[in-house]
Amino acid sequence: MQKHISFSEIMNMEKQERVHFINSLGGFKSVSLLATVNNYGQTNLAIFSSIFHIGSNPPLIAVIFRPNPPERDTLRNILETGFYTINHINENIYKQAHQTSARYDADISEFDVSNLTSEYKNNFKAPFVKESNIQLGVEFKEKIEITINNTIMIIGEIKEVYFPENCQSEDGFLDIEKANTITCSGLDSYHKTIRLDRLSYAKPNKEPTSIL
Amino acid sequence: MQKHISFSEIMNMEKQERVHFINSLGGFKSVSLLATVNNYGQTNLAIFSSIFHIGSNPPLIAVIFRPNPPERDTLRNILETGFYTINHINENIYKQAHQTSARYDADISEFDVSNLTSEYKNNFKAPFVKESNIQLGVEFKEKIEITINNTIMIIGEIKEVYFPENCQSEDGFLDIEKANTITCSGLDSYHKTIRLDRLSYAKPNKEPTSIL
Repeated sequence: MQKHISFSEIMNMEKQERVHFINSLGGFKSVSLLATVNNYGQTNLAIFSSIFHIGSNPPLIAVIFRPNPPERDTLRNILETGFYTINHINENIYKQAHQTSARYDADISEFDVSNLTSEYKNNFKAPFVKESNIQLGVEFKEKIEITINNTIMIIGEIKEVYFPENCQSEDGFLDIEKANTITCSGLDSYHKTIRLDRLSYAKPNKEPTSIL
Repeated sequence: MQKHISFSEIMNMEKQERVHFINSLGGFKSVSLLATVNNYGQTNLAIFSSIFHIGSNPPLIAVIFRPNPPERDTLRNILETGFYTINHINENIYKQAHQTSARYDADISEFDVSNLTSEYKNNFKAPFVKESNIQLGVEFKEKIEITINNTIMIIGEIKEVYFPENCQSEDGFLDIEKANTITCSGLDSYHKTIRLDRLSYAKPNKEPTSIL
């Protein structure tokens, strides 16, 4: 049976029920670990499920920050240093990744409490997560205030990419499923994936074909 | 073996290779059909993989539009009428959904060429996709120009939600995997999911537990 819920019913929901419900509606989400370091060398690690592609030329990626904790350390470090890393989450580390969402004090590194390993390489200013199979080094480019609900969008340019060599196709596509990247839905549901197909570029009056 | 690609190597890629590569880096994406109608009753249907949650109170959802076709009909209709629908894609319709990305003329409805069914209900001004299991009726709220690469972010408020009754948990969470919603990666790769777990709200010094 199909159920219908209207705007007024959404607004009348108890707060946590609404948060769970609305967070489910956008579909499956990218989920990654953002790693930063402040100017005193204190690292921070936090899980985000609001990461999205903005453009390929130049390579831009964005993240939405809610106005409140626990993301404040990440945002402050990005604005302070101009650099951060985005690290895909795989099946081996999703519980540790989830734990980074607990509200630790600013002087505690979530790397330590989650037993994930910070990795500095090639002089990039922010640490990567060693256990992550796909790692992006990103430079802060723009902060956009979304005034309608006081959220903040941070746009960054992808400067460095690390990935398993055997996961890239000849056409450039990176097989993130093969790299064990997972996805999430809602606030707390983690999922691995099974590829259905890759489909050819769509043209009028022509059925798309498999390009696997 | 881990491979490293730097910004300059990205910028030196052939255009299509870069598009495939960078679109893969953001992780798994929400993929849905946006349905609109213009003031003369001409419907339009287009697949988008740049949909993301903005906030729950009020319930806001956003989509990124590239500056060029083929999305121009969708954007014009949204601005003209103020309403659109976001319809989750499932395993039964992903090939038809992909086909809507072909560049049809404005006087052709992608509902017709993809054999998907438009469904008007409860006086909502835009059509839903009947074959979709989770359908959102959305009202346009704000247009934000992302000047760094001339893309446009459209923010809408969720006014109506339709979903299978047996897919909602008591805490509000909607099990979109049970509703057969799929995800995508890159430009053209479609994936179904297998839940790993739902994890409890994270607290310092406490292991997250399964809440399935």
